This record gives sequence, C-alpha cells and structure tokens, in this order.
Amino acid sequence: MKFVKNDQTAVFALGGLGEIGKNTYGVQFQDEIILIDAGIKFPEDELLGIDYVIPDYSYLIKNEEKIKGLFITHGHEDHIGGIPYLLREINIPIYGGKLALGLIRNKLEEHGLLRQAKLIEIKEDDIIKFRKTSVTFFRTTHSIPDSYGIVVKTPPGQIVHTGDFKFDFTPVGEPANLTKMAEIGKEGVLCLLSDSTNSEVPTFTMSERRVGESINDIFRKNDGRLIFATFASNIYRLQQVVEAAVANDRKVAVFGRSMESAINIGYDLGYIHCPKDTFIDAAQINRLPANKVTILCTGSQGEPMAALSRIANGTHRQIQINPGDTVVFSSSPIPGNALSVSRTINMLYKAGAEVIYGPLNDIHTSGHGGQEEQKLMLRLIKPKYFMPIHGEFRMQKMHNKTAVDCGVKPENCFIMDNGEVLALSQNEASVAGKIPSGNVYIDGSGIGDIGNIVLRDRRILSEEGLVIVVVSINMKDFKISAGPDLISRGFVYMRESGDLISDAQSLITKHLNKVMERRTTQWSEIKNEITDTLAPFLYEKTKRRPMILPIIMEV
Amino acid sequence: MKFVKNDQTAVFALGGLGEIGKNTYGVQFQDEIILIDAGIKFPEDELLGIDYVIPDYSYLIKNEEKIKGLFITHGHEDHIGGIPYLLREINIPIYGGKLALGLIRNKLEEHGLLRQAKLIEIKEDDIIKFRKTSVTFFRTTHSIPDSYGIVVKTPPGQIVHTGDFKFDFTPVGEPANLTKMAEIGKEGVLCLLSDSTNSEVPTFTMSERRVGESINDIFRKNDGRLIFATFASNIYRLQQVVEAAVANDRKVAVFGRSMESAINIGYDLGYIHCPKDTFIDAAQINRLPANKVTILCTGSQGEPMAALSRIANGTHRQIQINPGDTVVFSSSPIPGNALSVSRTINMLYKAGAEVIYGPLNDIHTSGHGGQEEQKLMLRLIKPKYFMPIHGEFRMQKMHNKTAVDCGVKPENCFIMDNGEVLALSQNEASVAGKIPSGNVYIDGSGIGDIGNIVLRDRRILSEEGLVIVVVSINMKDFKISAGPDLISRGFVYMRESGDLISDAQSLITKHLNKVMERRTTQWSEIKNEITDTLAPFLYEKTKRRPMILPIIMEV
Repeated sequence: MKFVKNDQTAVFALGGLGEIGKNTYGVQFQDEIILIDAGIKFPEDELLGIDYVIPDYSYLIKNEEKIKGLFITHGHEDHIGGIPYLLREINIPIYGGKLALGLIRNKLEEHGLLRQAKLIEIKEDDIIKFRKTSVTFFRTTHSIPDSYGIVVKTPPGQIVHTGDFKFDFTPVGEPANLTKMAEIGKEGVLCLLSDSTNSEVPTFTMSERRVGESINDIFRKNDGRLIFATFASNIYRLQQVVEAAVANDRKVAVFGRSMESAINIGYDLGYIHCPKDTFIDAAQINRLPANKVTILCTGSQGEPMAALSRIANGTHRQIQINPGDTVVFSSSPIPGNALSVSRTINMLYKAGAEVIYGPLNDIHTSGHGGQEEQKLMLRLIKPKYFMPIHGEFRMQKMHNKTAVDCGVKPENCFIMDNGEVLALSQNEASVAGKIPSGNVYIDGSGIGDIGNIVLRDRRILSEEGLVIVVVSINMKDFKISAGPDLISRGFVYMRESGDLISDAQSLITKHLNKVMERRTTQWSEIKNEITDTLAPFLYEKTKRRPMILPIIMEV
Repeated sequence: MKFVKNDQTAVFALGGLGEIGKNTYGVQFQDEIILIDAGIKFPEDELLGIDYVIPDYSYLIKNEEKIKGLFITHGHEDHIGGIPYLLREINIPIYGGKLALGLIRNKLEEHGLLRQAKLIEIKEDDIIKFRKTSVTFFRTTHSIPDSYGIVVKTPPGQIVHTGDFKFDFTPVGEPANLTKMAEIGKEGVLCLLSDSTNSEVPTFTMSERRVGESINDIFRKNDGRLIFATFASNIYRLQQVVEAAVANDRKVAVFGRSMESAINIGYDLGYIHCPKDTFIDAAQINRLPANKVTILCTGSQGEPMAALSRIANGTHRQIQINPGDTVVFSSSPIPGNALSVSRTINMLYKAGAEVIYGPLNDIHTSGHGGQEEQKLMLRLIKPKYFMPIHGEFRMQKMHNKTAVDCGVKPENCFIMDNGEVLALSQNEASVAGKIPSGNVYIDGSGIGDIGNIVLRDRRILSEEGLVIVVVSINMKDFKISAGPDLISRGFVYMRESGDLISDAQSLITKHLNKVMERRTTQWSEIKNEITDTLAPFLYEKTKRRPMILPIIMEV
C-alpha cells in the first residue's frame, strides 16, 4: 500500500462496513497481512434471484504471499461463508475455534476443497507469532459457542476486533473472559473494531438463559406435537430445545439441510449433548404419541423452500400439520423477511396449528449486545482510536456516539466504508486511501457472472415486462419480407389486447418502410427506429415502459 | 343469492378478509344491497410493478339495480381508492362524511368521473331509509377526521360495521360517541364486523395527543430546519405538525403530491386550521433562516419516488440536506417497507442530517385499537354473532379469541374469507355459499390486463432471466438458413460467457438438423426441440433456469 507509511498499521475491510454481512477485515503492517473472517451476505432483493454476495477479493489475490493467515471469530455464515470462494483463489492457513473449524470443514468438503486446506485449531490462550505481528484471542459470548475477539499486536500498537458479541452473564456455554479483556485494555489498545449490530438498542440484551425458561414453559404446558423453528446457526438455542425435550421425555426429529448439519456437527463435537437416542427420523414420528414428539426445523424466516414453509403450505413430504400441533418461532424476523414470516404464520394458523411468535413470549434473544454492552466493551478495552464495524451506516453512527460517551475523542472515531484504509501510527490516524472492494454476486453455480447490467435487466423485466419485435428484411430490395411480429412476456397478456398489437405492428411497418426508402444498411439504425417508434406508443397506451428488443433477420 | 333464504340477511366481503386492504363489504337483504367502502390494496411485491389491486366487482355489476348505496366509513385509500374503478362499471350513490367526500371528489375529478357521480354528505345523526333496510352511523376515533361506524338495520337484526377505529379519549378531533354505541348495543345487535388490525397487540393504543407533545418537544429543542415525513392520510398528524410550527414561529413548506392534496383539502374543509400565511412554497425556503422552516413531505415508508427519498439521495429538485437539518419519521414502517425505510435513514445520515425515528420517541401511534379497545367495542355493542374483518388470518384468529373472552359464543364467531357469504337469521348463522371475489391488478393505466400469467413471467424473468433463440429456416429444402442466434437479458452477461453461447449454438444446430431431416412442418415441434435441448444444457452449466423463447423465421 503506497499510501501507508512504513511505520503505520493499516486497517481495512472488504465487507462488513455500512452493511450487515460479508464480514472480511484486514490488519496489515508492512508485508504482513492478518485477515479476520471471510463471510457472505444474503441479498436484500430475493426476487432478483441472487443466492448471495461476496466481496471483491482482488486485493487479497494480488497480495497472497503477504497474508499470514485467515483468523475466524466464530462459525456464522456472514463470517465463514466466503471461505470456499476465497480458497479457490488463494491458499492460506485458516485459524479458528473448534466449532468454527468443524463448520468450515463441512463447507469445504461440499466444495471439494478440504484436501488442500490448512486448518489450524486455536484455543483462547494461544499466541500465534509472525515476524512482525502476532495474534491472540479472548472469549466472548454470542449465539454460537467458541466465539472469540481477536487481538493483532503490531509495532504501532494493538488492534482489537470484537467479533460478534453480547455480554451474557448467565450464558448456556462459557462466559466471556472479562479479566482478559481488562488486561488487554490495561496493556493499551491503539484501535478497537467493535460490533455495531444493536447500537440503536438502548438496552442490555436478554440472556439466553431466559429463553431457555420460556422454552421449558412451552414444553410443560403443551401435550401436542411441538414444532420449533429457529436459526440453525444458533447452536445454544438448539441445545436448549434438545435439553427441554429430554427433560420432558420427548424425542427430537430434525428437518432442513442446514439444521441437520448443525445438529450433526454440534453433536459430534460435543456442543449439543443429550442421550444418543434423543434423535429420531421422520418415519418414527408417526409411531410416537404427539406428546412424545418435538420437531426442530429450518424456516423461521419464512424462506419459501425451507422445511417450515413446506409444512405450512402442505407440500412437505413427511410432515403435515395435525390439530393440536404448536409451532414456535424461536427467532425474530430479519427486516426484509417480515412479509414471508407473516405469510407462514397465516398458513400455519389456517392449517390448524397453534402458533407462538413475537417478542412478548421471550422465546428469542439477539446474539448481539445493545448500547450498554457496547459501553462495557469500550470501558474494558479503552481504545485510543475507534472504528464501528458490522453494521449499516446509521448503526455505525450510533455506535460512534456511544464511543464518544465512553471517552473516545470524537476526532479519533472513524466511520469507514468497505475498501477504505485507516492508517494508524502511535499517535495519529487517518483514512489514507482506498483498495478495490465491492460486490460479487453468486447465483446458482456461477460466480461473479451476474453483473450490474444483468441485475438492471432483471429489474426492468420484473417491473415492466418485455416486448420483442421480430422483422425479417430483404436487403436486396430493402423490403420487409416478414413481420414485424410482436412477442411479449411479463407485459400485457397479448391475446387480450389484439388492437394494441395490430396498431403497434402497422405503426412500426409505416416507420420501417420510411427507413427502407433511405436504403440503409445500418442495422442499429433500423433497431433504433423500432424502439423509438414503439416505446412512446406503448407508454401512451399502457403507461408502462417494457424492455423492447428488436430482432432483425436478413434474408 | 340462491343459497340465502328470503328471511335471512347476507353479509359478505369482496376485499378486507384475510388481508389488509381493498376493504369492500356488503350487507344484503332480499333485493337491497348496502355496500360499505370500496378500497384498494397496495401489492406486497413492488418489484413486480403492480401499482395496486382492487377486488373482482362482477357480483356488484350483475346486481347493480339492487345496490342502494355505497357507504364510506372514512377517507383512507384502502376504503375509498377503488371508487373510480367501481363507478366506471356501475353508477350508485355514495354516502360519506364531509372529509371522505372531499377526498373522493378529488379522486373522481382526476379520473374524469366527478360529473356523473352522486355524492351525498352524511352527519352522525342521519338515518338513511330504504324500503326494507336503513343505515345509521356512530362517530369513532381513527387517524383521520369523520370516521364512522355504520349500522345497517335489516329485518333479522342490526349489522354493525366498526370501520377502522381506536378509542382515543383525548383525540385531536372529536371523541368517539360511546353513548350511541351503548344505545345500539342495548337495542340488540345481530352481528358485529370489527377492525382486526391490531388484534395481536395486547395493549391500549397511545393517544394522538401524546404524539403531539413529542412533536412539540422536537420543535422546541431544534433550531435547524425540521423535515417531517408522515402519512399524508393522517390528517390529525398533519394538523399537529402545522400547529407546532405555528406555535414555534415556523413556516411550513409541503412536498409530495398526496401530501399537497391532503393539506389543500384538509385546509379548505377546515380540518387543518392555521393562519393562511403559514404555508410557503419551495422558493421561499431558502429566503428564511433555518429555524423558521418546517418541511412536511411524503416518503415516510421509503417509497423510492417520494419526496423524502429524493431528498435523501440528492435527486430532489428543490431541497438538499444541509448540516443542522433534522428529519423526523412520524410513522412506523409497514412490514414490507422495513428495508426501504432503513435505506432512506442511512442515506439521510450520510447526507449529514440528524434523524429521529423508531418507537422510543413517541412520534407515531397507530390509528387502530389494540386488544383492550377491541374488548371495549365488543362490550358496548354486545353482538350475538361476530365476524373479525380488516386483517390477515392470524389477526382475525386473535380477534376471535378476544371476542370469545368478551362473551360471544365460540360457535357464533365466523372467520371468513373474501367472497364467502354469511347468512344470518335471528337465531342462526352459517356460511351459505360463495360469490366471485379475487384480485384485479392495476398497473400503469391498465385495469385487470395484468393476469397471473404475466405476473408469473415477470417473476421468472426477475429471478432467472431470459434467453431468446432466433433461427431462420428455409422450408423449401428444410435447412437452417441463419442462426441460431442467442440473445439474453437478465441471464449471464453474454460477452463474458462466449463459450457457453457457442456451445449452446452448436448443440441446438445439431439437434435442429436432426429435426429437419424429418422434414417437419410443425413449428411447435421445432420450438420444443430448441427448449428441450437448451434448458437442461443451461441448467447444467449455470444452475439457472432462464425463460427460453425460441423464435423461428421462415424464409
């Protein structure tokens, strides 16, 4: 990085700033780059058919030999989902906690990349030393076990990355290591990168333990089948459902691909503990009385293809809703999913189920800390410089206010964007320059072949539809030899709008004949004539602007 | 209605049951139909380019001469927006409060239908008598003045329709007429149709007065420009903003088409009262100091084309965000709009504005009552039969529980769907049959010409894109004389996928030559061959299923 001085540490993100998702951060000192996380982002407009989004990795590819390792804070998709796509480009060692590595291994296997991958398991007290930098860890609490904050020691000072965190003082797993955080703070921290997800929430996030109590209440009060939908990524939640099932003498059947692999990996690695015979398969469900059955499934966000959605609309092969079934949404809808969740709840009620959802039931809590927890982190780490990460701009903005309230100088707070590079020396910091960042769209098996043009086209097609004009022209005597024929998709239903079509045809014919008289051989000219004639005509008649596609055949 | 007995009263809805929107209810006794409201619905998938949805009016068209009148509960789009489309089909008298009629008049003028319309203004104490039925009214509180509940007296008994309501005991306008409701209940009510919007909210909706106090606080505490975004339909909110502006010596500039007409109509009819010189136009804004300016605009739902969105992204012709500006979202996002609202807030912050939003600020309250208010309505009206309206299935379901808690017999509660007809006699009720209902899509100036096929096409196009295969065939010697050429839109970007295309071309050519050998003259056969060849090939290569459109030219 030309724009960073030799005695400065550079901090940047390829994803995670100004957005929730595709977290990918870098800490660089001279020729040593420490990468933190490599996540994917789920697109907001599912209608445009994008599966997910990864960052532009070009800077990492160009500097592969400088990268000392990829350090993983925890095993969630928005922190590890990009790894297969990154490893296809560069081969770097990956350091992570036991569970995170388990999930990564599973992921790499699916992509046929496991063999060449270098996976190194870390424990909280490990110190990973490189020539100029070193990396240490501190345990945090989040919605998945083995969540770590990461400390990168660089000559100008320590850079602390919190990962995703809340302060759950009565967690299901191990508590956060407040002592170690305090020590790190005492040693002195140059810059803190802290999770901004809930920076707009002026409270302290409810403990997962409280959720466990609500889940137990539900088990005690119901003797029909219990269907729990939650995030497969929330291993603690899965453990609590399984525990409650065991305590209430119920078996657990698991549905949905991500849920099955979460349970398998969690069980194999010992994060989900219960008698082995707790789990049953679909076939066994109907052999047991309703009050012995728990169904644990995906679809808490109303994802159309997920298990719960198919159960709700009656298209699931193995499970139909029976009277007496109770469905629990142990989750809260992510903003973009409010409608699909709402539709699923309606369908479940119509199918005859009782449905438990909504914040009043204490059946879900966030994995991210609110303002009070962000303040606690700031007071423990006591950074000189502050950079709010993992959040949209307004969340970063709020988190900044909180940081200033906790004693960070306003001029030492940096709300940054993906690609911007913060250059830090012991007593100055500034945004020094930019490296390539941006979105790479992944759709089906293609990587990055969905460009902005394609997305723009999809949008127009979906909102206005398409009209194709086919005309074959005899270039010897400059005459229309066939057509113009109009074909439409997503526009008005042609059969029901005969006049519109025939009027359009004769209009185009009239104009084309004029063009022919000029004996033009410029196809572009002919195509433009068609578009320029048809577009205003269709808008006047229908107030719509479909995509117009002229196709000319020479004969 | 063959399936309704002569001594029975039929109650039905063409819209408003199992959904929020297009409220259109009917009460029929023999040859007299009383219509209540004619609303539109805003579609959930704005991506599919539908402007709005109205009900299938065919039953009303077939029975035009039976319809005694359309009675309007209040002037919101989901209750009056369908009127122009209904009046194009049938000419019936419209009864409504002063403000509702003002808004309807404005609407009909835009559609050039005002001249033939029969508009009759009603007061709370009016009694509209017909041969067998009569209609009376009772004042309710909602987010717009002149909101009425409607009572239809029929020989078997009284049918009460609440309209949209909450119980605001300290409203900005006139209070609800509890006395009259109590009297109606005392006379005896056969069936209550009641607003279910907030049936999942276990509280009593906050008074509009409290919102007024918060608005005043904001005016007192800020001396930069204040930009208020809210629903143009919430006349009381507009009045409170204008009042606060006057009290704090500020002028008000109004932006956004619906906001301008709401202010104009509200002011002309005396529902928004302030000195005439309170309002200023865009030109005058910059002549005044910041602390004298209030901007009142549309866009509180993040609608892309609304004033606030254009202000936020810097494309508004007259207003740019200045440092010191404070933007207030005096609204809460409708589920489907959470993302667009969030984007707008981010943009406003980036532009340098302070933004006030979210429930914690008490700057918005619902126009619909929670469970406690629904109970109060049930206790006052004391219906024998109950029908939850104006809500999705799960809201209807919750409202039913509330009704049973308030003494309605479970077997007397009917969760109905659009088109279903409830046949009521003095001491029995049952769903007797169904009349045509369903969605009619309105897009651009077209009415109902967007069918399901068109929508399905738009969805495929938006998710998978389109590939057109053009080939011209010489039918004399059965040879391909040009092509196959592939054109794609919304699929992979062709320039970057040369192999894919050329492979596809040669594949199609190979198969077509085979077909030609059979000397077929069946174009459908040729087209199918192209689709059947290309579809699996593209899926294998890209995991996508674009729409494939074969176009064959004969030469």
